[in-house]
Amino acid sequence: MLHLAVATTDPTWATRAAAALPVVLLDHAHCEKKAASTAVNLIFRYPDRPQLMLPLSRLAREELAHFEEVLEQLAARGIPFGRQRPSPYAGKLMACLREKEPARLLDTLLCCAFIEARSCERMKLLAEALTDPELIKLYKGLLAAEARHHQLYLELALTIAPEAEVEARLAEIGAHEGRVIAEGPTEPRLHNA
Amino acid sequence: MLHLAVATTDPTWATRAAAALPVVLLDHAHCEKKAASTAVNLIFRYPDRPQLMLPLSRLAREELAHFEEVLEQLAARGIPFGRQRPSPYAGKLMACLREKEPARLLDTLLCCAFIEARSCERMKLLAEALTDPELIKLYKGLLAAEARHHQLYLELALTIAPEAEVEARLAEIGAHEGRVIAEGPTEPRLHNA
Repeated sequence: MLHLAVATTDPTWATRAAAALPVVLLDHAHCEKKAASTAVNLIFRYPDRPQLMLPLSRLAREELAHFEEVLEQLAARGIPFGRQRPSPYAGKLMACLREKEPARLLDTLLCCAFIEARSCERMKLLAEALTDPELIKLYKGLLAAEARHHQLYLELALTIAPEAEVEARLAEIGAHEGRVIAEGPTEPRLHNA
Repeated sequence: MLHLAVATTDPTWATRAAAALPVVLLDHAHCEKKAASTAVNLIFRYPDRPQLMLPLSRLAREELAHFEEVLEQLAARGIPFGRQRPSPYAGKLMACLREKEPARLLDTLLCCAFIEARSCERMKLLAEALTDPELIKLYKGLLAAEARHHQLYLELALTIAPEAEVEARLAEIGAHEGRVIAEGPTEPRLHNA
C-alpha cells in the first residue's frame, strides 16, 4: 500500500533507534517541521494549481501540530531542542526531480509521498521496539497520519498527470528512494538506514 | 494598544476596499499565507531560541486556518485563487532590519507585530464598511486574532531584549511603518493606503 520498493529497513535500526531516544526525538521534531515547510513552499510555488491549496494547507497544519507534540515530548524528557545537521535523505531523494513543469511538480509530490511512506514504515518499527507506553501511543498515532499523507500526495499527483504516467514515475522514484535508503548513513534517524 | 504610530488610514480606503471585494479577498488570502510562512521561517532560522518554537508553530497553524477560510470565501463567490504580485509593504517595512543578531531577530519580531497591527486596523475598517453579514462576521473574528498576534510578537520580542530596548525600537519601527503606509500605493489591499 505504501509503494516502497525497499520496505525492509535493516532490522537493527529499530533497536538502535529505541536505544537513542534523544537523537530520534530531536530528529523527528525537525522532520515534522520540514514536512510542514515543504507543504507551505508548495502552496507558494503553485498558486495556479488551486486544487493543491486547501489539502496542502491542512496537511501543513497537521505537521505543525505533530511538531508541537514532539516538542512537548522533548520538554517532558528534558531534551533541549536545537539546531540539527539536516539528514542527507531528502536532498538525495529530491535529486531525481525533473526541471520542466509540470514534471517537476509531479516528481515533487511523488517524492513527498515516499518521504511520508518511509516515515510511516520507520515509525511502525519504532513503535514495536519502544517500551515507553506514551511514546508507543504517539508513534502509533503518527504512523497512521503518515500513511494518510502518503495517500494524499499520491491523490494530488493524480490531479497533475494521467494515472499511467503517475504509476510509471512512481516505480522509477520508488527504486531511486530504495537506493538512497540503502546507501544512507547508519545513524538512528527516521530517514537513514 | 496596537502601537501604530499612524493609526488613521485614509478614510476612503475602506469604501474603496469594500467595493473591490475580489481584489481584497484575494489579497487577504495571500496575506494569511505569507503570515504563516513568516512564522515557519522564523522557526527554521532560530531553532536555538526554544521559547519561540511552540508559540510560532501555533501561530502558523492559525494563519493557515485563516488562509483556508478565505479560500473558502473566494470559492463561494466564484473568485479564482491565483498568483498575485506581492504588495511592497512588507518588503519596505523589513528594510529597517538591522543585520547583526540578536538585533535582527528583535527587529523581525517587531515588524511582524506591526504587520499584525496594521491588518487589525484595516480589518476593523473593512468590517465597518462591508454589507455582507458573512464577511462582516469573518473580519470581526479575524481582527481579534490579528490583535492577539500583535501582542504575541511583542511578548516574544520581550524574551529577546530588555523592555527599555524593545520600547525604544518599537517607537522607531512604528514611525518607519507609518512612513511606509503613507508612501504606499493607493490600491485597495490590506497593507496599502
